[in-house]
Amino acid sequence: MIIDLRSDTVTKPTPKMLEAMMQAKVGDDVYDEDETVNALEEKIAKLFGKEKALFFPSGTMANQTAIKLHTNPGDQVICDKYAHIFNYEGGGASFNSGVSCKLIDGNRGMFTAKQVEEAINPPDFYHSPLTRLVEIENTTNKGGGACWDFDEILKIKSLCKTHNLGFHLDGARLWNALVAKEETTEQYGKAFDTISVCLSKGLGCPVGSVLVGDKAIMENAIRIRKILGGGMRQVGFLAAAGLYALDNNIERLAEDHKKAKYIAELLQQSNYVKNVESVETNIVIFELYDETSEKFLKSLSDNKILITNMGNNKLRMVTHLEITDNEVDILENVIKSLF
Amino acid sequence: MIIDLRSDTVTKPTPKMLEAMMQAKVGDDVYDEDETVNALEEKIAKLFGKEKALFFPSGTMANQTAIKLHTNPGDQVICDKYAHIFNYEGGGASFNSGVSCKLIDGNRGMFTAKQVEEAINPPDFYHSPLTRLVEIENTTNKGGGACWDFDEILKIKSLCKTHNLGFHLDGARLWNALVAKEETTEQYGKAFDTISVCLSKGLGCPVGSVLVGDKAIMENAIRIRKILGGGMRQVGFLAAAGLYALDNNIERLAEDHKKAKYIAELLQQSNYVKNVESVETNIVIFELYDETSEKFLKSLSDNKILITNMGNNKLRMVTHLEITDNEVDILENVIKSLF
Amino acid sequence: MIIDLRSDTVTKPTPKMLEAMMQAKVGDDVYDEDETVNALEEKIAKLFGKEKALFFPSGTMANQTAIKLHTNPGDQVICDKYAHIFNYEGGGASFNSGVSCKLIDGNRGMFTAKQVEEAINPPDFYHSPLTRLVEIENTTNKGGGACWDFDEILKIKSLCKTHNLGFHLDGARLWNALVAKEETTEQYGKAFDTISVCLSKGLGCPVGSVLVGDKAIMENAIRIRKILGGGMRQVGFLAAAGLYALDNNIERLAEDHKKAKYIAELLQQSNYVKNVESVETNIVIFELYDETSEKFLKSLSDNKILITNMGNNKLRMVTHLEITDNEVDILENVIKSLF
Amino acid sequence: MIIDLRSDTVTKPTPKMLEAMMQAKVGDDVYDEDETVNALEEKIAKLFGKEKALFFPSGTMANQTAIKLHTNPGDQVICDKYAHIFNYEGGGASFNSGVSCKLIDGNRGMFTAKQVEEAINPPDFYHSPLTRLVEIENTTNKGGGACWDFDEILKIKSLCKTHNLGFHLDGARLWNALVAKEETTEQYGKAFDTISVCLSKGLGCPVGSVLVGDKAIMENAIRIRKILGGGMRQVGFLAAAGLYALDNNIERLAEDHKKAKYIAELLQQSNYVKNVESVETNIVIFELYDETSEKFLKSLSDNKILITNMGNNKLRMVTHLEITDNEVDILENVIKSLF
Repeated sequence: MIIDLRSDTVTKPTPKMLEAMMQAKVGDDVYDEDETVNALEEKIAKLFGKEKALFFPSGTMANQTAIKLHTNPGDQVICDKYAHIFNYEGGGASFNSGVSCKLIDGNRGMFTAKQVEEAINPPDFYHSPLTRLVEIENTTNKGGGACWDFDEILKIKSLCKTHNLGFHLDGARLWNALVAKEETTEQYGKAFDTISVCLSKGLGCPVGSVLVGDKAIMENAIRIRKILGGGMRQVGFLAAAGLYALDNNIERLAEDHKKAKYIAELLQQSNYVKNVESVETNIVIFELYDETSEKFLKSLSDNKILITNMGNNKLRMVTHLEITDNEVDILENVIKSLF
Repeated sequence: MIIDLRSDTVTKPTPKMLEAMMQAKVGDDVYDEDETVNALEEKIAKLFGKEKALFFPSGTMANQTAIKLHTNPGDQVICDKYAHIFNYEGGGASFNSGVSCKLIDGNRGMFTAKQVEEAINPPDFYHSPLTRLVEIENTTNKGGGACWDFDEILKIKSLCKTHNLGFHLDGARLWNALVAKEETTEQYGKAFDTISVCLSKGLGCPVGSVLVGDKAIMENAIRIRKILGGGMRQVGFLAAAGLYALDNNIERLAEDHKKAKYIAELLQQSNYVKNVESVETNIVIFELYDETSEKFLKSLSDNKILITNMGNNKLRMVTHLEITDNEVDILENVIKSLF
Repeated sequence: MIIDLRSDTVTKPTPKMLEAMMQAKVGDDVYDEDETVNALEEKIAKLFGKEKALFFPSGTMANQTAIKLHTNPGDQVICDKYAHIFNYEGGGASFNSGVSCKLIDGNRGMFTAKQVEEAINPPDFYHSPLTRLVEIENTTNKGGGACWDFDEILKIKSLCKTHNLGFHLDGARLWNALVAKEETTEQYGKAFDTISVCLSKGLGCPVGSVLVGDKAIMENAIRIRKILGGGMRQVGFLAAAGLYALDNNIERLAEDHKKAKYIAELLQQSNYVKNVESVETNIVIFELYDETSEKFLKSLSDNKILITNMGNNKLRMVTHLEITDNEVDILENVIKSLF
Repeated sequence: MIIDLRSDTVTKPTPKMLEAMMQAKVGDDVYDEDETVNALEEKIAKLFGKEKALFFPSGTMANQTAIKLHTNPGDQVICDKYAHIFNYEGGGASFNSGVSCKLIDGNRGMFTAKQVEEAINPPDFYHSPLTRLVEIENTTNKGGGACWDFDEILKIKSLCKTHNLGFHLDGARLWNALVAKEETTEQYGKAFDTISVCLSKGLGCPVGSVLVGDKAIMENAIRIRKILGGGMRQVGFLAAAGLYALDNNIERLAEDHKKAKYIAELLQQSNYVKNVESVETNIVIFELYDETSEKFLKSLSDNKILITNMGNNKLRMVTHLEITDNEVDILENVIKSLF
């Protein structure tokens, strides 16, 4: 049996989620007639207190659409040097929207309002790109699942208002942040113009992301989704999984976080581990000493434990709803056996 | 009960297809680990005798990716004035690929090799866009489901070779053409560089299209799909429907064609119908006299029969696997009642 | 001595224009400090009653900038099938602005308000590109220097207002139309949102075009010009030619028109000429009988007369300020010698 | 009289350059018939040992064209965080070419081959943008006119070859580097695939840049220039200035460098100056103590001395062919008066 700690994207629907999918009432969503999709969109819009939500086949498309809604070609987006939209969306921001990214040298994927202010180009100096959008990620993927300080978010929001900039949240793992920090969707809805949330990571759905925002900014979203090729037909089967997950799989994220922290402690106690990043949610990033890296990876491999190698002896483990206590025990044994 | 003749996209999975979906073995397709997706891609690649196939959330994304694979920004695509890629993909060809379309004034969406030759810009005259790609649609959507003459396709293929142009087939309803004309996927595979086929129209799947081509041209396809946001996770549930449909729903398209022809005959015999386009597959396009149009539409509406109004008294009916003999009877009664 | 009737772009500055260039007061226009450029821009803005004018290195860049100012990627521009922006700007509309063109099948490059109305896509049907801009050319280049009926222009203007569309004039040869039809820059300024005019065709300048419009639409023009690479330094030398031409070379266009009409009459009287398009300004497009085409071209070539071969036995001659009466005599002899 | 030290772009043609301009033999360069343009292009191609050179209205357009020639949309360009193409071309790299920039945190605009190697994305990991081009600037503009170590350039060249990356030099001020370091155009021609050089900075021309490269890479350059709107007509007047400058204004750059160094020494001896960056060519960047900044700027202003304020008490002076010994004396007096 494989223990797959590479990412929380690898989860398969549980029997109950699958049943919900199978019984979904579907229709042609291109004609706006899929009632399950509509129910999901309404539910998520309401959760965030926004006027409009739209279902997407991927978080990448939800983010790419958001960037397009906020910008024109040539414009600039302020984000962290770790940002998913810069590093892991295939160059989509420049391909789809013709924009560049001004990367902030943040701390674990997070930065301050002051850093944002310094990154804004003067709008009338036409030699430099026009700054139009600030984008943050919560939790931060490459930052090891770290959670933003909400007060800093509010400061940045205020700055965006002053400078007439859009403010987008890549909330691929926002649910983890909400659970870890006891925050609410409502407060995030108020802070951002647009938010993308993912159903297929911690929530355990097979496919799907949702973008929310008020009508003014979302007016063109369905057109952009069409252009990118995200208009699907009887897609309610996937939306049904999302509805199920919203009702059943959010609170249980706390268990993933607990397991991640437990694994982090085990690693911290291991003399061959150089450093373990502070764990706030379900991601554990740690660094091995050069000489032990190979042995460690071989031992995991021998025990059919899959993790992500980030290069430079940095490794990543992600807990999720398929990781059982028993599997953590097996991992614990492997970790301890290498002392 | 509604009789939905608007499009063959409105079909919902049959119980057996749904069962196939729910029993699918899935995995994270972004890690290339969804065995159902892989099986579908392999099956379709083999059908067309091509080296590579890739699953997409929509036919639009499959076509848009193909256009991008064949062109660079500024290039020009030759296609019919009725082409889906020009008229119904939201302006995607210019948005995603930065290309323009040179529209040929064809006959029901089809044109000749001679017309293609006249449409090619001289490659060294840099004032005009560089012609790079010829695109055709079979069957033609806006052309009323008409089927291409395969000999003309071969002539165009030969021309493309001479002028170093790509040749793409939008095969959203290719299955209908194959059944109607007793042609094979192999012969189409040999004629085109890339082909997109749709699973969610006549084949009755909820979602999904597949793009096929040889490795050289398809090498970058997964990157483009990622950029457009078409990379999905446990998407094998949708691919399973495709596998089921390939095995069970192709030959039965003949029934849809038979029904469409029967409906066309009924209309032709009706004195209030000005013209009925020749029916070759599952689409019936007809024109009413101005004075009867309103009455006809009301009568359909009263009987819960949905069709597509194309404007200018032109109407469209599309048969598909959910249209029963009984429903055709009801339609017949309505049509006859209006004599 | 060569008689160059290929285009009115081939003219070189006259000694007086050259003197004006040489004595121009220049500065760094990127710092907005070139007083000659500023004087030219102010003069042209005032001529058209617009708030802002901007100097460009080419008519193509002026048009491309205008398209960008009016549109977003994916949008659609309505123009004639002969339009320079579609046929002769290298595919720039889709490259620079990501837009497509809906071509109207007009008469010599001109169309009616009714044809525009039929070409507008419904804005809420997001499958089709969003129509944003109507573009016309006056005089029409490929249409043989034909001039628009100003009443039709006003009807289209009214339609654009109703449908919230931009209205751009490619006025590369607008000066010819103004002289031929005794129209004014003011009335054109009122009819269009943006107008590009060329200094290097009939006006005889070496380089340069100017785009005019009111502040709201032109606000971003300097940024687009910068991005496309049209920001130049001490470019007042070129602007000086423009100022000279505006004062000295407009009225004399009537002479070019007279010569063109004279040449057209000669051709019309020639039995080997199949057809001569009606001449309104300085362009003569005519068609030869297949069997005489070669002989005619050879005879011109022997007499060092250069003209443009448009293909299919269609030929084009353009008169301009370097074509003397004596040269027309030589041409007349050649034409007559072939009876 | 104004002493303009803002930039070397502010220079106006000397009487002799102006004479050369006005006596230029020109033609329609769109027809490739401007012999002065052709002579300039041939001369510069030969200087760099490249097969092809092309004249552009600006350095921005030359760079933007080069980026386009090397990349496809979605690709990534490696350059310094100070790079002109990222900071001062209006966002053109993403607007015109749809590419993103991976910025290296270099030293005064310069970086090492090792840093390049770390910045290259793995080509088969399609989540991250495809690295295609390395771009450097010599001398560095924002880096205060610093000159690259040619050995490091060769190391990067070798790396580009290994990884199949293009290598472009923004040589807006390459002439200054050549003079300062006693390097040759030939050695630069061998090291880079494409090089843009500017005629309107140290060389004193009013307008113009040239892009050089071998035929394979330059094949499409004229088409891209057309699309961006850089195709001009009788532009030999500007090219003539370039020819004059190449013959007369290169060696004299040493005088500008001498003056810049002299000014830097004066500043270094001033107690109110916090820091002066090492001066290698014609740019002096220095930092004032917060409390003296305002007084310093006022004193310059009172003496009609213009310099560039880079923000954060950083100031820039650039010497050029219009700055006389007498003007340096005046500046010296101002600097010393503030002790």
